[in-house]
Formats: sequence, C-alpha cells, structure tokens
Amino acid sequence: MTAAAAKTDDVGVIMAGIGAAARDAAAPMAQASTAAKNKALTVAAETVVASTEQILAANALDLEAAKTKGLSAAMTDRLVLTVDRIAAMANGLVEIAALDDPVGAVIAEWDRPNGLHISRVRVPLGVIGVIYESRPNVTADAGALCLKSGNPAILRGGSESFHSSRAIFQALQAGVAAAGLPAGALQLIPTRDRDAVGAMLAMSEVIDVIIPRGGRSLIERVQKDSRVPVFAHLEGVCHVYVHEDADKDMARDIVVNAKMRRTGVCGAAETLLVDRSVRDSHLPMILDALADAGCAVRGDAETMAIDSRATQAGEDDWRAEYLDAVMAVRVVDGLDQAIDHVNTFGSHHTDAIVTADSAAAETFLAKVDSAIVLHNASTQYADGGEFGMGAEIGISTGRLHARGPVGVEQLTTFKYVIHGTGQTRP
Amino acid sequence: MTAAAAKTDDVGVIMAGIGAAARDAAAPMAQASTAAKNKALTVAAETVVASTEQILAANALDLEAAKTKGLSAAMTDRLVLTVDRIAAMANGLVEIAALDDPVGAVIAEWDRPNGLHISRVRVPLGVIGVIYESRPNVTADAGALCLKSGNPAILRGGSESFHSSRAIFQALQAGVAAAGLPAGALQLIPTRDRDAVGAMLAMSEVIDVIIPRGGRSLIERVQKDSRVPVFAHLEGVCHVYVHEDADKDMARDIVVNAKMRRTGVCGAAETLLVDRSVRDSHLPMILDALADAGCAVRGDAETMAIDSRATQAGEDDWRAEYLDAVMAVRVVDGLDQAIDHVNTFGSHHTDAIVTADSAAAETFLAKVDSAIVLHNASTQYADGGEFGMGAEIGISTGRLHARGPVGVEQLTTFKYVIHGTGQTRP
Repeated sequence: MTAAAAKTDDVGVIMAGIGAAARDAAAPMAQASTAAKNKALTVAAETVVASTEQILAANALDLEAAKTKGLSAAMTDRLVLTVDRIAAMANGLVEIAALDDPVGAVIAEWDRPNGLHISRVRVPLGVIGVIYESRPNVTADAGALCLKSGNPAILRGGSESFHSSRAIFQALQAGVAAAGLPAGALQLIPTRDRDAVGAMLAMSEVIDVIIPRGGRSLIERVQKDSRVPVFAHLEGVCHVYVHEDADKDMARDIVVNAKMRRTGVCGAAETLLVDRSVRDSHLPMILDALADAGCAVRGDAETMAIDSRATQAGEDDWRAEYLDAVMAVRVVDGLDQAIDHVNTFGSHHTDAIVTADSAAAETFLAKVDSAIVLHNASTQYADGGEFGMGAEIGISTGRLHARGPVGVEQLTTFKYVIHGTGQTRP
Repeated sequence: MTAAAAKTDDVGVIMAGIGAAARDAAAPMAQASTAAKNKALTVAAETVVASTEQILAANALDLEAAKTKGLSAAMTDRLVLTVDRIAAMANGLVEIAALDDPVGAVIAEWDRPNGLHISRVRVPLGVIGVIYESRPNVTADAGALCLKSGNPAILRGGSESFHSSRAIFQALQAGVAAAGLPAGALQLIPTRDRDAVGAMLAMSEVIDVIIPRGGRSLIERVQKDSRVPVFAHLEGVCHVYVHEDADKDMARDIVVNAKMRRTGVCGAAETLLVDRSVRDSHLPMILDALADAGCAVRGDAETMAIDSRATQAGEDDWRAEYLDAVMAVRVVDGLDQAIDHVNTFGSHHTDAIVTADSAAAETFLAKVDSAIVLHNASTQYADGGEFGMGAEIGISTGRLHARGPVGVEQLTTFKYVIHGTGQTRP
C-alpha cells in the first residue's frame, strides 16, 4: 500500500466513523430535553473557564506555528486567545443556554372541516457540518448553536487553529458527557488532513447542511464542490443610498456608522450612493466626516470633482468588499438608478436608504433584492443579536430555508403532526 | 462543424436565451400585482377551454407516437387528455387564482428596544425549473403555481407529451400576455433534445430551485446531477402502524383507505405494522378487508401463519413503493420496534399510528422522522389540498425550506425589512 493510499484510507475511516456517530446521535438529540441541552452548555461554559490555562497553552502552540508559517497580522489576530476572550466565549455558551429551545415549538396549527387537527412542529434540521478558518471561538459558538437546536455537529476547524480548537472542544465534550447526551452530538475532526474537507462535502447521506465560515476562497470552494446543501454568505457588498429627501445629519451619521463602526464585518457598508440633487448640499459634509473617521474614498468623476482626496473608482470598486477603511462613492440619478446599482453590483446581503420620503423608502425596500433592507438605519444592524434572535452562526445570502441571520430557529425544520379520530379520505 | 456540435450549440443557445428571459422577468414578477397575476390565470383558464380542440389534436399526435413507441398502459393513461380533463385543468387554474397571494405577506414583525421595527416579508423564491414526465397537465398546474407565487418558471415537459404540453402552454402564454406580464415569466423548453435537461441542472446562476415530477429514475438523476437545489420526494414508502390499543374497526378502515383509496399516489400506504398482542384479534379482520378490496399481501412468517393468501415478504418488501394493490405486512413487538421499522425502511414521507393510547401516539408522532405523521387518520391525507393549502406542486421529503406539501407559500422566501429613525449601532 502506498503512503498516499494509507493516508486517504485513514481519513476515509475517520470520516466514516464520525458520520456514523453523528447519524446515531440524531434521534436522541432530537428528543433531548431542554434541561439536558442547557446543562451541557452550562457545564461546557464552566469547563471552558476552568480550562483557561490549557486553552492558552494550546493557543500558544498555534501562535508559534503561525509565526513560523508567516500568517498575516489579521489572521493572527483572529487566532489569538486571551483570558478575556476565553471568558467571553464561556459567556456566549451561557447566553445560548438561555435562549428559548426552538425544538417542539408549534409554528402554526389549524383545524380542517373534516375534524383533522394539523400542526407544524419544529424539529432539528439533522446533522450539520461547520467548516471554518482561523477563529478558534467558532468551535464553541457553532457547536453550541447546533447543540441547542438538537443537531449533531461535525466541526472542521482551520489547521492554523488546530490545538486551540481541540482544547475548546474538550471543554464542550465535558458538557455533553455531563448531560448524558451522546458523544456523537458534537465532534471535531481530529486531523489536519485537507482530504477531510472533501470528504465532508461529499457526505450527503450523513450531513444535511454545511455552513462554511471564513474567507471568500473557502466559501467559494464549499459552494462549488459540496454535494450537501450550503448556508453561506459569499460576501457583504452593502450599500447606503442617500436619497434626495434625506436629512443631512442623519445621512452623515448613518454612512459613517455603516462604514466605520467595524470595517471587518459583513454588514459594513462598502458603497455610498448619493442623489445628484443633494450632491452639493449633502456629499461634501459626508465626505469630510468619512475623512475625519479615517476612511479613504474611491469616487466617480462627480465625487472626485467635489473632493480632491478621492481617488478614481472603477467597476471593480462597485463590486468590492473592502472590509477596510475604504468606501466607494457614486452619484446617481435618483431612486431607480440607485436600486439598479444595488441589484447589479451588490451581494444581496444588506442595503439601506436614508430618506424622509416614505414612498421612496417603500419602493427601495420592495425592489432591492437583499436579505436585509433598512430605512433610516445603519447596515451594521445586520446581526442576529441585534435582531433579537440571540447568537447567530452566520448570515445567509442564499434564498432557500435560511435567509439573513442564521440562529437556532434557522437550524431547525418542521414536521406536520396530524391528529384525527379515525378519518379516512373520501 | 459536426452535427453533434451543431446540436449542442443549439441547445446551449436556446437555454441561454431562456435563462436570460427568466432572469429579466424575476424583478417585474416579484412586483406584479395580485390582480395582474390573477388576470393571467383566469384568461389562461378561458383560453384552455377555448382551445380544447387544438389541445386534443396535439394530444392525438402524442398518443399516436406513444403507440408507435410502445409506451406502457400506465404512462399512456397519464398522457391522455379528454374534454373533461381539459376542463378540470382550466378549473385548477381558476382555483389557483382564488388562492391568497403569498407575496408581500408579513410573516412576523417585532420592535427592538432601540426603536427599530423589523418585519419578515414574503418574496418570490426566484426562478423555478420544473422537469416532468408524461402528464401534460403539469404544464398548467406547475406553471400556474409558479406564476401565482411571482416566480418565473422554466418548464421542461416529457418528450412523450411534447405536443400536448405545447398546446397547453400556448393557452397559458395568452394569459400572461393579456395581463401585461413579461413573456419570460413562463417558458416551455421548445426542444425535445435531452441535453436541455442537463443544461437546466447546470444553470445555478439562473435557476434557484428545480422541482422534478415523475418516476424514480428521473428524480434520482436530477438529485444526482443538479447543481441547483432540488425540492423532491424520491418515493412514498408510507406505513400504518396498528398499536395494541387500536380500535379494531378504525384500524381496518384506516388501513384499507390508506392502501386502496388510490394505490398510485405517494401518500398510499405500502406497509402495515401490527402489534403482536393484537395479531390474533385485529389482523385477520384487516387482512380479510384488504383481500375483499382486491389487495395482495406479502407477509412475514406470523402473517403467513394467519393467512394462507399471503406470500413471503423479504427485506425488499419493507423498502418497496408498490404503487399498486399490494401491501407488505409485519407483526412487531410494540411501539419501539414499529418506530424503528418506519425510520429504517421508510422514506420519511407520511406515516400513521392507530391507537386509543394518546401517550403511545405522542411518542410515535415525535420519534418518527417523517414530513407528515398522523394519529388515527389515513396516510392518503398527505396532500396540499387536504391540508387547506390549495394546489400543490408536489410533496417534499427533503428537510430544507419546503418539507411536506409544496404550495404557493413554499415557493416563496422572505426578506427582513427594517424601519428606523436614524439609528446607528453603538
């Protein structure tokens, strides 16, 4: 047997075992009591805190390897764990325990004229695969959301966070065991072998949905190769459109917040559209505020004519997800052109209009084809927590099943439960 | 250029044009008024009736070809149109016009402490592809459901119903035109070339979901090859479980109805499970009633010992979708074994328990992992119309997005619409 064949066999054997354990855990997890799931989460939180030293030691190994490998500063920052970050992670587990249990909730019920009583009842989605990159805390967040929603989870962390993810995972496992839940409820792939990702993407008999968390190349690869349905957002090319009836101060505050509050989140605005009729009244003040906040501007010809600090924007800029202190700015002819721009160049994630004209707002909200559309509010509200949904595993720009923030409810499906008294169909 | 290359090019060109027209129609269809959509449907219904002669003439061409080709009697029966069937098809269009418009409905809305008002609003799913076999009436049913839910539809009818589908489609087109809706809202692939199916399955940039309607081989092919998400039910291996506390007469009536009312529908029961403790009291009477109704039985050893008419069942029978007057019968140890049998051998479609013990019923309803579970009612109620949902395009055994009957609501997704007063995120 060649070394390559032995390696592939090992991953195949590992993944088959993980798949079987996850499948076996699906029925008991679907029936698990809220109390048991919450106990698993609270014990996991306590164990995470109690294991702070071990988690930091594991993280030090990963950081050492990252240095050797020359990982970028941004990637390394995501990888770093501190006592505070570990405490925040534990707190996240407690918050997920405090969420309402979605499983068993009756979404709708009605009676039929023949006396049948029909209800739609939430049940877990099945087995969920999560593939993520360098943030080790995703191990806790994603694992806990799957557990709360009754879904066995197969987690595949990035190789650069291998030791950190394992240490966190061990704390979660302690919670699962303490609650008497099956070990197959939560599994972390114990190898860095990249073939494991390919194996996950092909496990359509075992895994019901895959959620990738990471950069564009990861998500594109998953979307391209997966035989399993995917909940993903490819990117957040979000817009703020300042309509001719926008209040000037409100427009400025929303634009600066949408762009600069946190530039690295998917709900950060990337492009500003401004009506020509308020170009001279509103735009200079907004550009000054962006400059004061440290934001560079790539503008069209009219923007450049107003502000010499702006550099020339090309079509690439209209499609860019900068995730940085850079904003593309375009002057538009009015509502129709703004809507057209958003639908053509955007990513169907989150887009906002600022206007005092409610008819214009309704047109924008109806015609912009995005998961989240806002009137007079910042795009940075694109977040499950801000929606009141509790923690989220991500924001989906797909149209099927889960659109927008993916929280515990979005990790469920439903069944129809029908009660009769002996009805037979005529 | 070779003939094969020319052929492939043609299909490629045709499909690219169809795809572009569907995409262009998506935004106007999402905004189309309920009145316009209903006008399209009612004019289509009138035109179907007015075109009865042409539709029958087209159908005669297909039947002639079917005879030459030696199509099976069952397939030919599905293909046949009559004045009555055409009238029923037109009536179906009128019924879909009468359904509530799902688009624009507010599914949920709530206020946040910061004053943001969030609503989830139904919007069309996008572009829907429907691939079907010999039933020409699917052209009308599926086209109308897509139209009512605001989704451009790309229809691909079976080659054996080519002329019939075209004639029906022309009547639908007349409705679309009369209502001023874009022609791209409803398209029928105008070639029998099988490459068109492959092209549809690869059009993930254009088509949001594909719905196959037909036999197992079609659906397996679509599920295997599609790069586009699929709503499908592979088969309906449905069960009736007669629990030890079942009323004898009710059990008999439900079993006979579930099996024999119509044997060819996906909600027809295929397997009967009976508790050993009522084997001698209940089973003989049920087997007599099945025999009286013309149903053959494939039984396990205990069933064969009771009834000499039964033939030996093997494991294949537990997995069989007979769609015929044949039923597999097994004596089980009790509730747990019954649930285990259903989850192991069934198809997660529709399963029923007959019992007077409500605790046993709740256990069955909770633990059987099927789209539809019933207590004391026939599995033949697995139907969107019987649920009060109006017409359905099929029943999904998938877990994502649409589970169970797929009606106009299941052909929508939603967006989050947020109204603010200038909120920026702290």
